[in-house]
Amino acid sequence: MIYFNNDYSEGCHEKVLEALTKSNLEQTPGYGEDGHCRRAAERIRGLCKREDLAVHFLVGGTQANLTVIDAGLRPHQGVLAAESAHIHVHETGAVEATGHKVLALPSADGKITAGQVAAAVEEHRTNSSFEHMVQPKMVYISNPTEVGTLYTLEELEELSRVCREKGLYLFLDGARLGYGLEAKGYDVTLPDIARLCDVFYIGGTKVGALFGEAVVIANPRLQEDFRYLIKLHGGMLAKGRLLGIQFEVLMEDGLYFEIAARADALADRIRSALDRAGFPLLYPGVTNQIFAVFPDRVLEELEKRYVFCPDRRVDEGHRAVRICTSWATREEAVEELCRDIEKFTGR
Amino acid sequence: MIYFNNDYSEGCHEKVLEALTKSNLEQTPGYGEDGHCRRAAERIRGLCKREDLAVHFLVGGTQANLTVIDAGLRPHQGVLAAESAHIHVHETGAVEATGHKVLALPSADGKITAGQVAAAVEEHRTNSSFEHMVQPKMVYISNPTEVGTLYTLEELEELSRVCREKGLYLFLDGARLGYGLEAKGYDVTLPDIARLCDVFYIGGTKVGALFGEAVVIANPRLQEDFRYLIKLHGGMLAKGRLLGIQFEVLMEDGLYFEIAARADALADRIRSALDRAGFPLLYPGVTNQIFAVFPDRVLEELEKRYVFCPDRRVDEGHRAVRICTSWATREEAVEELCRDIEKFTGR
Amino acid sequence: MIYFNNDYSEGCHEKVLEALTKSNLEQTPGYGEDGHCRRAAERIRGLCKREDLAVHFLVGGTQANLTVIDAGLRPHQGVLAAESAHIHVHETGAVEATGHKVLALPSADGKITAGQVAAAVEEHRTNSSFEHMVQPKMVYISNPTEVGTLYTLEELEELSRVCREKGLYLFLDGARLGYGLEAKGYDVTLPDIARLCDVFYIGGTKVGALFGEAVVIANPRLQEDFRYLIKLHGGMLAKGRLLGIQFEVLMEDGLYFEIAARADALADRIRSALDRAGFPLLYPGVTNQIFAVFPDRVLEELEKRYVFCPDRRVDEGHRAVRICTSWATREEAVEELCRDIEKFTGR
Amino acid sequence: MIYFNNDYSEGCHEKVLEALTKSNLEQTPGYGEDGHCRRAAERIRGLCKREDLAVHFLVGGTQANLTVIDAGLRPHQGVLAAESAHIHVHETGAVEATGHKVLALPSADGKITAGQVAAAVEEHRTNSSFEHMVQPKMVYISNPTEVGTLYTLEELEELSRVCREKGLYLFLDGARLGYGLEAKGYDVTLPDIARLCDVFYIGGTKVGALFGEAVVIANPRLQEDFRYLIKLHGGMLAKGRLLGIQFEVLMEDGLYFEIAARADALADRIRSALDRAGFPLLYPGVTNQIFAVFPDRVLEELEKRYVFCPDRRVDEGHRAVRICTSWATREEAVEELCRDIEKFTGR
Repeated sequence: MIYFNNDYSEGCHEKVLEALTKSNLEQTPGYGEDGHCRRAAERIRGLCKREDLAVHFLVGGTQANLTVIDAGLRPHQGVLAAESAHIHVHETGAVEATGHKVLALPSADGKITAGQVAAAVEEHRTNSSFEHMVQPKMVYISNPTEVGTLYTLEELEELSRVCREKGLYLFLDGARLGYGLEAKGYDVTLPDIARLCDVFYIGGTKVGALFGEAVVIANPRLQEDFRYLIKLHGGMLAKGRLLGIQFEVLMEDGLYFEIAARADALADRIRSALDRAGFPLLYPGVTNQIFAVFPDRVLEELEKRYVFCPDRRVDEGHRAVRICTSWATREEAVEELCRDIEKFTGR
Repeated sequence: MIYFNNDYSEGCHEKVLEALTKSNLEQTPGYGEDGHCRRAAERIRGLCKREDLAVHFLVGGTQANLTVIDAGLRPHQGVLAAESAHIHVHETGAVEATGHKVLALPSADGKITAGQVAAAVEEHRTNSSFEHMVQPKMVYISNPTEVGTLYTLEELEELSRVCREKGLYLFLDGARLGYGLEAKGYDVTLPDIARLCDVFYIGGTKVGALFGEAVVIANPRLQEDFRYLIKLHGGMLAKGRLLGIQFEVLMEDGLYFEIAARADALADRIRSALDRAGFPLLYPGVTNQIFAVFPDRVLEELEKRYVFCPDRRVDEGHRAVRICTSWATREEAVEELCRDIEKFTGR
Repeated sequence: MIYFNNDYSEGCHEKVLEALTKSNLEQTPGYGEDGHCRRAAERIRGLCKREDLAVHFLVGGTQANLTVIDAGLRPHQGVLAAESAHIHVHETGAVEATGHKVLALPSADGKITAGQVAAAVEEHRTNSSFEHMVQPKMVYISNPTEVGTLYTLEELEELSRVCREKGLYLFLDGARLGYGLEAKGYDVTLPDIARLCDVFYIGGTKVGALFGEAVVIANPRLQEDFRYLIKLHGGMLAKGRLLGIQFEVLMEDGLYFEIAARADALADRIRSALDRAGFPLLYPGVTNQIFAVFPDRVLEELEKRYVFCPDRRVDEGHRAVRICTSWATREEAVEELCRDIEKFTGR
Repeated sequence: MIYFNNDYSEGCHEKVLEALTKSNLEQTPGYGEDGHCRRAAERIRGLCKREDLAVHFLVGGTQANLTVIDAGLRPHQGVLAAESAHIHVHETGAVEATGHKVLALPSADGKITAGQVAAAVEEHRTNSSFEHMVQPKMVYISNPTEVGTLYTLEELEELSRVCREKGLYLFLDGARLGYGLEAKGYDVTLPDIARLCDVFYIGGTKVGALFGEAVVIANPRLQEDFRYLIKLHGGMLAKGRLLGIQFEVLMEDGLYFEIAARADALADRIRSALDRAGFPLLYPGVTNQIFAVFPDRVLEELEKRYVFCPDRRVDEGHRAVRICTSWATREEAVEELCRDIEKFTGR
């Protein structure tokens, strides 16, 4: 079986493994206070073109999400997010476990708009029972979103502006940030994100690392005492250097971006094959995630050979699945998949 | 100005005040371990025709909600509720502050159905990422609902059955329970509720008491150590007898039900006047809450004399308001209001 | 039986009851936004000689403690308190339930010193693992303490100074504040407390009210959004005016202070009787709480007639009990008790 | 500089690294549902001689502690632990952040006794205000303790018996379990621990792994839904196999025990050198941690060459430091240290 179900089926990029191997018997201080973490953070600040960013390395995405959100909110405050947001549906209530409500906004494509945020805040502020309602204080977006869509630069600018006007933090979950930044025709850069968000993270787990998310904090209010928050939520890795070493490699000589671009290009090939064969997509996409709709009998055939991620039943005779490429996807596997897709027709 | 905006604008029923006055200098043990609380609990068990019920008296509704929910759930479990549920929109995230997610279900009339509950549980259990999602473990309903509607006996029976089949607790918020039970033609009784729910409360704050909700726990698993939960959430009243005294009076000789019935009858008069004048209701209702739609200019006139609770703008020229009667509503006030409504016409 | 076990065995002072009765059918806005609450708050500001104080009325002490502490701390911060502090031993972990650690300091007399606070903060700041330890951010003291002792003005000044130097909030639990302020020879005033603390409360439950604590917030950072915190912790009373009415009366014409002084004077008489009879005290005291040590056989006799609060076994043949007077204590009851005590001898 | 300050200064044992390297491009399911995790769990069950154990792999110790404790306790329940316990002093209030109080017991040597546990439970149950106090429901011990001491089999048997009698869970933090089990003359085995504890973990981070703790749950009540708890606390590693792979290797052919035994033997050599030179130990120890007391001037010399972990000032002229060996300690480094220690004399 060939796995296309997600982007975390393999270990790590060979250069990452080499660096881990090479440094294995070095003696370093623990808890992220070593030279590798320091250098990795410097590289990230360099790539963001900002010297005032705080950078912390956490092991995983749910951990990063709950730690950032809990660090930023007072007890009566909540976080606005798309109803499809990972924090709303796929983290077992991790945000609520820290005491905060996720204020879900309707979304057809995984994104929310500046207008929705402004409306939610206004509705709260002008409500006669405002103190009886959770106060929106942060906006959570994922980019790429959970369904593989991307915020345009203009959308991000608007979200950022409305957040600053209304006094909310803008938090961008970048678990798949590399695949977004490198998508064909995408006009947003890392410095843009650092400029527009109060806090965001650069996902490593899905883009070449064994694990690890680099949390980048631009807003000084969120920087304060952040390491305490990491520790109290059980996220402070004893051998923190493991995170530093991995990001040191990924952020060197453009490796992170190069491997993401390759995965996007492979996904583009699959999208072309789907298009040629006439199988529609659930969401428009240019990143490494493809949500494709197949007739049941086609899927049944394909699933003899490939593992996809089940998404939903679309109608009586059709189902949608997620097909992922990643830094580890083999070119031949993609070629085979494309050939097999084109054996069928969706028209 | 005459207040029709809610059902907690006044103090308490005169008999309650008398009892508080009469007992004022009695010396009793604190924290609800006095004879008044004991007798009030006995009366409630009698009215429910069940000797195995645990009864606890809490000061208010949000406190009752968060304490019951926190008592029943493990950290990864959540509570299913209508998207309009008080716990979802009007308690400043009190449930989330105890670590639990409110799993909101769509609802047009403030109610949720057994089918929705079954579907939500099935969706959770059969999802391949079920451990990444909050586990539904309790169903919260309010009866009457926040918009004044009522669950029929059949609806409650079905909700109860599905909860028992699926292993969920059924929790009924009865902040206005009296106004429901006494509504014209309503076929549900207190023993029905005690039989069908795992836990519920009989609201005093809005039905004749200065404050107080009698939490009635039928399910032995929820009974265990409940007083600890009250204390840790700051709900254990030092002079707990104040709650006992009030419910002792309200539950004696049918006082609670009589005053609720009177308020419902007064609301019926207002509904008749609205009907005669041609002003529509947002929700069908037979309890003490009326959600009426008026043209702006009519409302402007009425609001010179009466205070209503703003609900929402319905369209360009119309707004909805909530009109409440209560145990304290004066008959003459209702007569005046009816006369004033009938000066206008909604047709 | 005559109860001397605590100071919340009765209802409320007759003037409070009169005011509740008189206002019973008034119609007012809910949730503490009525004229009574406004006037009560003004009186408290007047008595504190400070116009910039925020005043909120809560139902009980545990509720006040957890709400204030949760309002002031970020997730990694804790509150320093005596190991005998109410929040550490008698609130079922209410503070921890909001996510915060109580950092207990040794104390022989219920008090903690500025030196202890300074040392704890220094120890934290200079520890190489400081981020692995809870950050002290608030100091909780009760005055009078749980064992009836009082902080001198100098001690409060020092605590206040060290808190300001170190950036900690000073929070004074004044559940029995009246009995402290009125104790013979006590040199601390309400304006002193308002000047030295960031937040404190004036206890009503134990000093003439049915229930209620007036939380007074001097520090603007703690004032922000405090009503949200009250609501989310279930402490916002629908008929908030009940709290306003009671404090309006208590804070008028010195009633609160007068009834507290009377209780202290009655306690002094009991202390004199104990002294004459030769029964020692566990703690020096001048307020309404007396911790007296009796031989078992004496206590056995006294407990046929009086209810005391058991404190601890002191040695093989002796036990300590707490004897409380209050605003409600009858003079004749005290006379009888004194006579009965003097029938025995502790020498 | 040579680091003896802790047991997590290096990466992982070479065999672990080999296995990670070898498996790097395998495609596996995520979140710990792969074959490596399954096999590692089976090996652990085999070593414990119990087929009914649930085994979960978590990244770190604080995470393991907070997840286990939160899984086992209801909101009003707390965990008894030595005042020196890691959860009480060095986890930034991680347990309290889940809402639970750590009930600290005095301890001179890092251990608590069955008698202390029994007394704490009895004191709680017989207290007249028991519902106002946190209910003890779990006992947390670390073995080896934070100061390197070990529970004897008899002590563990007694703790286990008292916990079962009183209805408490016994939880053993085995962050350094290997170093304990392999200590010279130690009579406790892994099957003993599995038999006596309700839950415990086998630490990998400090014993040859890059990271990872194997949580072993014997009590079925604690097994229920544990994976949800892992997820909600952010501890579910996407590439869970990384944990499985490491424990698969460590638990094969006795590797874990062999490398721990070696570290203990190296520590014994250092202890002998200290003894010969006359430098006393703060705690008796047979595991990989040594708490040694040196005159300031000696330490000053040694610290030019070696990094130790500062422990405390013992008196005017003496300080204590922790000296750690580990699976990674080089024999020559130990020889050098011993020689250097013996250049001085503590007599």
